[in-house]
Amino acid sequence: MSESKKIITSGMRPTGSLHLGNIFGALHNWIKLQEKYTCFYFIVDWHSLTTPGFGDAVGYENTKGLQNNIKQMVIDWIAGGLDPKKCTIFVQSHVPEVAELYLLLSMITPLGWLERNPTYREMLKDYKIEYPTYGLLGYPTLQAADILAYKGNYVPVGKDQESHVNLSRDIAGRFNNLYQKNVFPLPEVLMTEVPKIPGTDDVNKKMSKSAGNYIALIHSEQETLDRIKSMFTDPVKIRKTDQGHPDGCVVFAFHKIYNQEAVTVVRQECEEGSRGCVDCKMQLAQKMNQALKPIRDKRKELEQQTDLIYDILSSGANQAQKVAQATLSEVKDVMNLTRKK
Amino acid sequence: MSESKKIITSGMRPTGSLHLGNIFGALHNWIKLQEKYTCFYFIVDWHSLTTPGFGDAVGYENTKGLQNNIKQMVIDWIAGGLDPKKCTIFVQSHVPEVAELYLLLSMITPLGWLERNPTYREMLKDYKIEYPTYGLLGYPTLQAADILAYKGNYVPVGKDQESHVNLSRDIAGRFNNLYQKNVFPLPEVLMTEVPKIPGTDDVNKKMSKSAGNYIALIHSEQETLDRIKSMFTDPVKIRKTDQGHPDGCVVFAFHKIYNQEAVTVVRQECEEGSRGCVDCKMQLAQKMNQALKPIRDKRKELEQQTDLIYDILSSGANQAQKVAQATLSEVKDVMNLTRKK
Repeated sequence: MSESKKIITSGMRPTGSLHLGNIFGALHNWIKLQEKYTCFYFIVDWHSLTTPGFGDAVGYENTKGLQNNIKQMVIDWIAGGLDPKKCTIFVQSHVPEVAELYLLLSMITPLGWLERNPTYREMLKDYKIEYPTYGLLGYPTLQAADILAYKGNYVPVGKDQESHVNLSRDIAGRFNNLYQKNVFPLPEVLMTEVPKIPGTDDVNKKMSKSAGNYIALIHSEQETLDRIKSMFTDPVKIRKTDQGHPDGCVVFAFHKIYNQEAVTVVRQECEEGSRGCVDCKMQLAQKMNQALKPIRDKRKELEQQTDLIYDILSSGANQAQKVAQATLSEVKDVMNLTRKK
Repeated sequence: MSESKKIITSGMRPTGSLHLGNIFGALHNWIKLQEKYTCFYFIVDWHSLTTPGFGDAVGYENTKGLQNNIKQMVIDWIAGGLDPKKCTIFVQSHVPEVAELYLLLSMITPLGWLERNPTYREMLKDYKIEYPTYGLLGYPTLQAADILAYKGNYVPVGKDQESHVNLSRDIAGRFNNLYQKNVFPLPEVLMTEVPKIPGTDDVNKKMSKSAGNYIALIHSEQETLDRIKSMFTDPVKIRKTDQGHPDGCVVFAFHKIYNQEAVTVVRQECEEGSRGCVDCKMQLAQKMNQALKPIRDKRKELEQQTDLIYDILSSGANQAQKVAQATLSEVKDVMNLTRKK
């Protein structure tokens, strides 16, 4: 890792095997970034404890699936193209220095900044959380610790996460001001244009694990076909010969991603009534499965190599820990938490 | 340390050399407790960062005096009678496992418990804190981590700290319930009757560093005399022959502590007008200095033995860390934060 390279930090909640939304939303981008930057990619197991946990989803009330989710996710990261030789892959909680940094940043984070955080307000509403915990309110402070422990310069996020990165920047700036030393670079958003992957249920919804409207790498080709078959299509197109409206159809949305070369033909045939929905779905499934095959084959291989996966995580954590230790010791030094000998 | 002994945990903010209020309020009690219990006594440097810092007092905005305050306080603990062979003496932040436990307990502490904490509300008012930080709100969660890391059974506190210990008990109980294992004993208050030590300025005020109305172990005999001389006495007793009212007089309040054998005579002479205030103060200073002499001599000795002080702190931290590590590993285990092999 060259010193002059800028530093990227980014985390993913341990939701298990990646779905298509994760792949297009983050992974493809991470893979590109590992070529140019010093990248720290981590699974934020602590963050997953900020919410209670809903259904199968991990939360502080439901941690049963946590370890398997971590394993499946790392397998997919690597199967999808993250290269542990090019980037540092680890689990958030394996670097306990981040907890200490979180505690120290807690002391200088104005409560009002957190209370006014729009993402917090949305989370309460979206997840119907009536009794938030102290940890949920402090989510951005923990995220700041994640970024600042590695002195991250850029955080690749979507529009919805921008306010959190801004809070991290504010916390870093406040720290530097209070202790009159530029310990932290001020992290910036690296805004990424990603194709919006719809849920399998509705072209206007986002694909997500918690909504259940997803297709994951861990799914078999048959399961993928089944999920495509269950997609709602244009409700006014009953028979093959009926004229369809592809723009509101979720099957067509996926053709645009996985069958780009034929998308003009698909549109035309649908609109003129020469293509039936069943055939259209079969073709999509075939194209999608074909595109996912190399990653799925690789993930099957990796699933047999559990030791390799844990070795990657363990050496990633060691690498990350060295950086975090150096940062923490600087932080403690300017805060006079260590004795000058 | 016998296994059957109950565990005591207690901390003191690093305010420097102890004043008479600290000695009677906590230290005397701690010294008694070390004979019967397994005691963890620590200087809560992290807690001192929850407030901004006022005047010379340490806070997150003013950490300059922190290391010296820690040193002076430990010297006084040991000079006053804490025995590192009988109890574990250390600095809070030297056990980073407590930071990790704080983070994990953050995730299960309902925000409402902290917002409704009466001590928090009082602190905002007393210290005129307009912009509290996230860390100040979470004070009781950090205190819970301090107690629970060592599986404390009892916390010796005064009435004003009772609500914090109750919160720690609630957090411990919630954890045990959520993860269906009695990882933590439910800590209880060990209420202690301590003589109220008035400030040097007013018999109705508490002696405290921040109010500046204190006499400390670090003060010389002359400084002690000076501080006693500056005490206000009965305003209607101008001349020696005037009749005084000892009950509202701060000098008399200290006679009750440091000149117990003569207190009846002091009262009588003051009330009948046969004792002047100057003589009365001189006598008090002589008695007080006499009582404090052995501790002050010992503190002077210890001041020359810096290495010994830091050895005590370092071996205390090691001992405490072993206990905290064992607790944390249990905690992470029931929360499924570690991989079962």
